[in-house]
Amino acid sequence: MLFGRIDHIGVAVADLDAAVELYGQQFDMTEQHRETVEAQGVEAVLLEVGDGHVELMRPLSDDSAVGKFLAKRGPGLHHVAYQTDDIEATLETMRSSGLRLIDKKPRTGILSSRVAFLHPKSTGGVLVEIVEPAH
Amino acid sequence: MLFGRIDHIGVAVADLDAAVELYGQQFDMTEQHRETVEAQGVEAVLLEVGDGHVELMRPLSDDSAVGKFLAKRGPGLHHVAYQTDDIEATLETMRSSGLRLIDKKPRTGILSSRVAFLHPKSTGGVLVEIVEPAH
Repeated sequence: MLFGRIDHIGVAVADLDAAVELYGQQFDMTEQHRETVEAQGVEAVLLEVGDGHVELMRPLSDDSAVGKFLAKRGPGLHHVAYQTDDIEATLETMRSSGLRLIDKKPRTGILSSRVAFLHPKSTGGVLVEIVEPAH
Repeated sequence: MLFGRIDHIGVAVADLDAAVELYGQQFDMTEQHRETVEAQGVEAVLLEVGDGHVELMRPLSDDSAVGKFLAKRGPGLHHVAYQTDDIEATLETMRSSGLRLIDKKPRTGILSSRVAFLHPKSTGGVLVEIVEPAH
């Protein structure tokens, strides 16, 4: 198996505090971690669901990837992240299979994870993130 | 906790066999189950990822919900499904919290699961499915 689990889904939001409140009240999901992830241009909150997460993301600027997504599509599902134990090996496998990568090398994600995004054009329109958690 | 895990993500596709091949070749996810789910107007394939799934969905007609989604947005992430052990209790909790439901009562989903969809207008633009697996 290439992936261990669905690590998280990423949700684009305009108002982070309002979204945290909504998920808390309606879904009983509580804020577990909040972090500004400069490399991705977002302020993000992780909510716990079993051994996976929901990642709520507010863009730091309108011209960031998530800012543009919000302007075009409005708030909603942004990406899915699959967990791997060895991101370099996974990326190498994907490169070999001809898959288009947004990140050729891993970059730093939330909670010091290592992440890489794949291009939606080669994954059936789905923005896919590969994540190797820090621990 | 209201939800046990992210049960699956739902992905809208135009060509189901091509999508199954893509997920197999690039992500090492194999077809686990295929079913026509009339109540949702789709032919669907489940792929395994840890204890969760990816559900690939091809619309049975252009005027189904997924058919309209495809026409408007193209292939891509369609919904997220959270697992519950007691869908009636979960729906009652949600109704009480003022959340708008698409399905007031559970209907039959893939693999004889019981499912209900929540309205994206009350969940920050995310189409959310609640699923109580058959076993």
